[in-house]
Amino acid sequence: MGILIKGKPVADAITEEVKKEAEVLIQRGIVPKLKIVRVGEREDDLAYERAAIKRMTACSISSEVLALPSDISQADFIEQLKNVNNDDTVHGILLFRPLPKQINENDIKFIISPEKDIDCLNPINVAKVLEGEETGFPPCTPSAAMEILKYYNVELKGREAVVLGRSMVVGKPMSMLLLKENATVTICHSRTNNLEDVTRKADILIAAIGKSNFIKGDHVKEGAAVIDVGINVDEEGKITGDVNTSDCIEKAGLITPVPGGVGSVTTAVLAKHVIKACKINNRGVR
Amino acid sequence: MGILIKGKPVADAITEEVKKEAEVLIQRGIVPKLKIVRVGEREDDLAYERAAIKRMTACSISSEVLALPSDISQADFIEQLKNVNNDDTVHGILLFRPLPKQINENDIKFIISPEKDIDCLNPINVAKVLEGEETGFPPCTPSAAMEILKYYNVELKGREAVVLGRSMVVGKPMSMLLLKENATVTICHSRTNNLEDVTRKADILIAAIGKSNFIKGDHVKEGAAVIDVGINVDEEGKITGDVNTSDCIEKAGLITPVPGGVGSVTTAVLAKHVIKACKINNRGVR
Repeated sequence: MGILIKGKPVADAITEEVKKEAEVLIQRGIVPKLKIVRVGEREDDLAYERAAIKRMTACSISSEVLALPSDISQADFIEQLKNVNNDDTVHGILLFRPLPKQINENDIKFIISPEKDIDCLNPINVAKVLEGEETGFPPCTPSAAMEILKYYNVELKGREAVVLGRSMVVGKPMSMLLLKENATVTICHSRTNNLEDVTRKADILIAAIGKSNFIKGDHVKEGAAVIDVGINVDEEGKITGDVNTSDCIEKAGLITPVPGGVGSVTTAVLAKHVIKACKINNRGVR
Repeated sequence: MGILIKGKPVADAITEEVKKEAEVLIQRGIVPKLKIVRVGEREDDLAYERAAIKRMTACSISSEVLALPSDISQADFIEQLKNVNNDDTVHGILLFRPLPKQINENDIKFIISPEKDIDCLNPINVAKVLEGEETGFPPCTPSAAMEILKYYNVELKGREAVVLGRSMVVGKPMSMLLLKENATVTICHSRTNNLEDVTRKADILIAAIGKSNFIKGDHVKEGAAVIDVGINVDEEGKITGDVNTSDCIEKAGLITPVPGGVGSVTTAVLAKHVIKACKINNRGVR
């Protein structure tokens, strides 16, 4: 019988550490600040925004929201985003995506400077993910999954990690982060033949395919660490992961729940990134 | 008994196609041009340079070499590289690396604009590799390996590809190119446990680890396509690959030789990239 590993203790530990660092900065006259840029009023953006603000407060990081109308023109949006980026009191910027369709992401992805781009929008940070270069900011979700693996002492070096999903927000950066820790990494996806054979060799299985309860016991190797990155909403409005937890917990060694798993660690990673950005923006301050 | 698949017919086919495209451009008054920037006189740079110039000539692409002294200062180097980049008659730029140690690659990697950066130095092209975005230029060597797989009709979709090595010039971009073709991709390396078990499940095995004759028959699955990207020089000065070809050919379905395999296709890919860059630089010309 596997152990359910929750996100909360991981998030709490990060929060405590980040709060200490924030207070040192504040004592030196630097107030770490996150700016959230939201276009429109999407329900999931609003929910994440509330959670993020709460986390920043717990971490002694100040936060501000710039809420823009969903019908803003690209030109006006660019002007607003540039102003946020040029604001010296802002250390990290989180821009919610997807953006409304009148705004072309290709035209705006360079506006947030790499040092303030804490959720990996700027191609300079994307390149650093592939390079395994630690001065950048990988997206918060795969970083949160890595924090969970680290907190629960899951050995990665030399072992087989299988990532199901190849998105730019989770699957691909997750693969690169695991590779950097010297795991042997397999990326599989909807086109993979004999998927169960592939996932069943995973010592560490990361599910990020966006299909409710997709991963069953047959996909899982005895004793594997199973990290569920999926956030799906079923017909009854209930939040489900990509992993059928009750079916998999018998075989898994460790398994994260949804909700209460990876999702509850992302805002703590966001806070950690703000502090890192704040230090980069104030080089010489230690 | 496997079939030895050589690079030459692949390179010839690409050359023929590229030459046609070059001639269309020339008829419209645009002369495609490659500029090679070389610092110092490293023997392998000189050998590649000769091969590249020969290929460009065969493709009706003009080429020029800017040879700089190995003790050039970073400031002087930057000025020279900027001039090359600003030259409107130059469509693609190949800068040999590694650079001498007084030049910091981080300080110069943005100088070549992404549209002229045909061997993936600029982070904007690096990011496109991770994104699977086809408007960029992946490094020539993994692209050459992909051309070989395509030419010899190796099915990739859904099948297991294993890449041995995780460098930025081969392993990582190779993995992303295979993923884009819907292969299931495993990246393994020197820290991988039970390497033979991992490589032996590969329908397509890419060796790019830089160890002479490292891959033996025991690493190879019956009928696999084995692509040897290694170029090593043994004690007698003989060029060897990462694959012990004579040991593997019994089990492999298809196998590339070294020399005469991937290495003989890279300059053809370089020519293809120059034409692509030329078209991007002259948008509207078809």
